[in-house]
Amino acid sequence: MTTSGPAPRIELIGVQGIPAIKEGDNLPEIIYKAAGNQKTPLKEGDIIVVTSKIVSLAEGKTVDLRTVKPSTFAKKIANELDKDPRQVEVILDEADSIVRMAQNHLIVETKHGFVCANAGVDKSNVKGENTVCTLPDNPDISSRKIREGIKQLGRIDVAVVISDTFGRPLRAGVANVAIGVAGLAPILDLRGKSDMYGYKLRVTQIAVADELAASAELVMGKTNWIPAVIIRGYTYKKSEDATARELILKVNQDIFR
Amino acid sequence: MTTSGPAPRIELIGVQGIPAIKEGDNLPEIIYKAAGNQKTPLKEGDIIVVTSKIVSLAEGKTVDLRTVKPSTFAKKIANELDKDPRQVEVILDEADSIVRMAQNHLIVETKHGFVCANAGVDKSNVKGENTVCTLPDNPDISSRKIREGIKQLGRIDVAVVISDTFGRPLRAGVANVAIGVAGLAPILDLRGKSDMYGYKLRVTQIAVADELAASAELVMGKTNWIPAVIIRGYTYKKSEDATARELILKVNQDIFR
Repeated sequence: MTTSGPAPRIELIGVQGIPAIKEGDNLPEIIYKAAGNQKTPLKEGDIIVVTSKIVSLAEGKTVDLRTVKPSTFAKKIANELDKDPRQVEVILDEADSIVRMAQNHLIVETKHGFVCANAGVDKSNVKGENTVCTLPDNPDISSRKIREGIKQLGRIDVAVVISDTFGRPLRAGVANVAIGVAGLAPILDLRGKSDMYGYKLRVTQIAVADELAASAELVMGKTNWIPAVIIRGYTYKKSEDATARELILKVNQDIFR
Repeated sequence: MTTSGPAPRIELIGVQGIPAIKEGDNLPEIIYKAAGNQKTPLKEGDIIVVTSKIVSLAEGKTVDLRTVKPSTFAKKIANELDKDPRQVEVILDEADSIVRMAQNHLIVETKHGFVCANAGVDKSNVKGENTVCTLPDNPDISSRKIREGIKQLGRIDVAVVISDTFGRPLRAGVANVAIGVAGLAPILDLRGKSDMYGYKLRVTQIAVADELAASAELVMGKTNWIPAVIIRGYTYKKSEDATARELILKVNQDIFR
């Protein structure tokens, strides 16, 4: 029972004024300046959650579908799932395997190891009617670059989470998860800790990076274009070699499969 | 692009000073008073996320394992999974079906329709070495009672989310999800809305109640005993007949299965 001290408090602060992002844009600088402009300058210990979309756009991870020649296989799948064969070709390029094809959905395991619909390839908030966007090639490295850029600009150490919106097995609707992390341990391991009666907690590894990504989505919305959120007041476990791959459950450890 | 007005901001405020809960305790009053005592009184439009554990304890959803006579089947499963046969009996009582048995885990579909490990039956933060706690019988009704109690105490309309910590397919670690809701629509439906380039979003139903539950976990921790969190500043869609059953994906709609 906690009874003393001020109420524990975490703030989620949306970063406004981030323009439409194009290839080569300096994301850390844009986020750092936008936060300052709205009088919520970034601080030591902040976590910055950045939507994968602007990371992909800054890294030029867009494909003009008019330049794509779909394979025979992509055409067949596209026909079966009622999709654009050129977009299917892009999805297959991003995929290591197809996990499931059903109900007009193409679930793949991406080259990063994420299991998600369409390999994260989508059109929303991407300029150009024929242009789609893929996930960043290595979202952990992208996270580290943003963290490093902010460190140089402000002489502050922040953590960075790159988020994407995934559908989930068992649960309706989509939610944000972490696909890249820098500076913080994505999983908080409480095994061996005790509860209020001294009972040892047995299986409690909390996916905090996913919870951070999910909480940021509440501020981001989908239509408001708030592609970065500052999470302030959450004490995270620092990690210099953090990777969002820790959040991927291997098939042989997945007790639901 | 959003450029004007103050930064959008959501606060997560942990409610301290909640004592160990026992059957018959008046949860809305306890939470309402504890929030006031720490100088963060509940306000109109707040969302109160409450861990299922204290709801179960207040509702007397505990079982003294010494009173449980395990069936032959429970004994067999317990032996196979290296579990207490009496606890397995309680789990089977709470289950409509067994989804999977593997690696010492018993995944069931609960009587509420949730697919989770051990039907949510657990020992953590429960008084008594031989006592386990089950999920509330109807977490939506429990949520409504808390909302109603707070309405009467403070003449304010709040939303309530009852959270529990679930493992997830595909993703490592556990995260909080919503198992009961009152006053707010658990899924935000953005279908038909447009992105910044006027492109119509196609499949975007956001599981906001799960995201609210996940964000609250960041404040709750597991060992600190902060079993209620105030979420302030999130504009939710009101609903008088909300149910967390909306968050359960039916098997025939689950594109991952």
